[in-house]
Amino acid sequence: MAVEVKEADIRDQVFTVEFLRNVGMELFGAVGAPADEALIVVNELVDASLMGLDSHGVMRYVWYTEEVLNGNVKPSAPIRIVKETPNTAVVDCGFNWGPVGASRMVEIVCEKAAISNLACAVSINNHHVARLGAWVQRIAERGMFGFATANSHKQGQAVVPWGGMEGRLAPNPLAFAAPTSGLPVVLDMSTSMIAEGKIRLLKHQDKDIPPRCVIDSNGNPTTDPSAFFGPPKGHILPFGSELGYKGFGLAVMVEILSASLAGVPSNVEQPYCNGFCLLAINPDAFCGRERFRELVDELSAYITSAPPAPGFSEVVMPGTLDFRMYEKRLVEGIPLAADTWRKIVQLGQKVGVDIV
Amino acid sequence: MAVEVKEADIRDQVFTVEFLRNVGMELFGAVGAPADEALIVVNELVDASLMGLDSHGVMRYVWYTEEVLNGNVKPSAPIRIVKETPNTAVVDCGFNWGPVGASRMVEIVCEKAAISNLACAVSINNHHVARLGAWVQRIAERGMFGFATANSHKQGQAVVPWGGMEGRLAPNPLAFAAPTSGLPVVLDMSTSMIAEGKIRLLKHQDKDIPPRCVIDSNGNPTTDPSAFFGPPKGHILPFGSELGYKGFGLAVMVEILSASLAGVPSNVEQPYCNGFCLLAINPDAFCGRERFRELVDELSAYITSAPPAPGFSEVVMPGTLDFRMYEKRLVEGIPLAADTWRKIVQLGQKVGVDIV
Repeated sequence: MAVEVKEADIRDQVFTVEFLRNVGMELFGAVGAPADEALIVVNELVDASLMGLDSHGVMRYVWYTEEVLNGNVKPSAPIRIVKETPNTAVVDCGFNWGPVGASRMVEIVCEKAAISNLACAVSINNHHVARLGAWVQRIAERGMFGFATANSHKQGQAVVPWGGMEGRLAPNPLAFAAPTSGLPVVLDMSTSMIAEGKIRLLKHQDKDIPPRCVIDSNGNPTTDPSAFFGPPKGHILPFGSELGYKGFGLAVMVEILSASLAGVPSNVEQPYCNGFCLLAINPDAFCGRERFRELVDELSAYITSAPPAPGFSEVVMPGTLDFRMYEKRLVEGIPLAADTWRKIVQLGQKVGVDIV
Repeated sequence: MAVEVKEADIRDQVFTVEFLRNVGMELFGAVGAPADEALIVVNELVDASLMGLDSHGVMRYVWYTEEVLNGNVKPSAPIRIVKETPNTAVVDCGFNWGPVGASRMVEIVCEKAAISNLACAVSINNHHVARLGAWVQRIAERGMFGFATANSHKQGQAVVPWGGMEGRLAPNPLAFAAPTSGLPVVLDMSTSMIAEGKIRLLKHQDKDIPPRCVIDSNGNPTTDPSAFFGPPKGHILPFGSELGYKGFGLAVMVEILSASLAGVPSNVEQPYCNGFCLLAINPDAFCGRERFRELVDELSAYITSAPPAPGFSEVVMPGTLDFRMYEKRLVEGIPLAADTWRKIVQLGQKVGVDIV
């Protein structure tokens, strides 16, 4: 039953994981998701929030639900392999939620790589896969090396190619993970200088954009959020600033693996879509699984033994800080900004879930 | 027969490709290389020079020959597969020249991927593989997607981890290539901000190092080559400057694929060695080879249709400028600095090749 939002209850708050899981299950259930699919998505978004990656966390409850209402996400849609070999798969995700298709693709590549050493799956008709690092992390948790890329539909192409002044690429993230005897090494990075959401936040806070991140609509560097948003709108630069041809090159690789390889053009209008490519390498075919784990342990110890530079307190491996935040928030709870919480409560009213 | 170097003949000069090929064949032959191996190395170094990538080109004749004299490179050493499955191989390169092992590994992964869709090979006991992009380019020339990484032995670890002030990683390059209906898309990039050779050149030219590239021995940013070289010596930062944790993460991925996967520790003293990992993806298992080529063509056209930003005359795909330089130098010849030519001539004297 929908109730009135009590504005006095809308403030910055810290919630327990259990409460936020229940909220998610109810919201997704209210728009027709089967419980098993809702659970995959909820766990994924809560995990991202636990890791401190809030932009890919619980705040996405709203958009993920709205996309069902908009008809862009189709809960219950089957995840179908449309082309397959012993070590490859093209997976039609049927515009179910991205994490539903992506978690299935993790199973596919892990099963195939366990037998066939290497495995690669690409998706078609996939929605937002949420935290890219999640999928490679799961591959590493099974003792293998994981690599993933994701592109976005044309409307998300806010990033210019090197030397250009019109968007042609999305933030096109890539991720890898490798097993250790403890938590895996996980890198999850965009190939652009900054996210548009971050620029919007800076504008609201009346702050400048860091230098070398964006250009205005005339292609000139700017740090002014208003010059970025225009109109006419500016653009985001590829990762690397003065060496941005490298970030551009990486973004092109992501585009080719996530879209071209799956047979999907990059320059056509389509519903929201993350092209997603996932690769698993089974170390048993190389140095052996245990030796691989030992060597990544040794590498981690060697790298983190470097004395910290001024301004740093320690050297950590990729992913370490996220795992630390996960442990902390698991105990202390997940903070949500008033605005995020308001949107969740309002969405609850809209879909008939009483969550205040 | 060795002859006196005529100092008057030592100047900046442009040489024909044929002449430089002959010089290389004679130098490598003089230190005992079989003609087929010498030809692989000569072609590779000349190609890099043709592309304008001089640091990996003909100037390497000297070091490649000296490494034979030092006993670190062993011409004629067999390239042996020491562990193999239908889609993987661990290749012992026996400290033959790196391009000899790498070109064999290209054959191995292409043969395997033609049958088994995906293939990955890693090397042990490999020397400098020269231009990393060369090996993925050859995979793309056969219609497949290629990806490669290379690390370096401990002495080459001049790059600090993110937040650290002691070297733990080499410039650890990565490369990919994808086929088009014309020349392939090829990215070949280091995961560090600058090469040490470039800093040495800036010092000789009495120029500053670009900002955000290096730190001094106390971990503080500097643009002064003398502060970098010390003693005590400073360090190179990972690619990405303020976002250097991304470049660091990529360098870690390169290290894991190039060393750990092959069973090689990263923190031990060893002779000069490039760990080298090569991956081929056969698009026939996905959208099909012809469709893949078409889609990369379309992507290239779409990206390069972006209007150029101020200061740029056009937008080009990764690799385009290198291929243009190749065509230009094929006609005009390869320029060598006086100092490079002097070293080649002196080396010729040392090994008994008359090249003046």
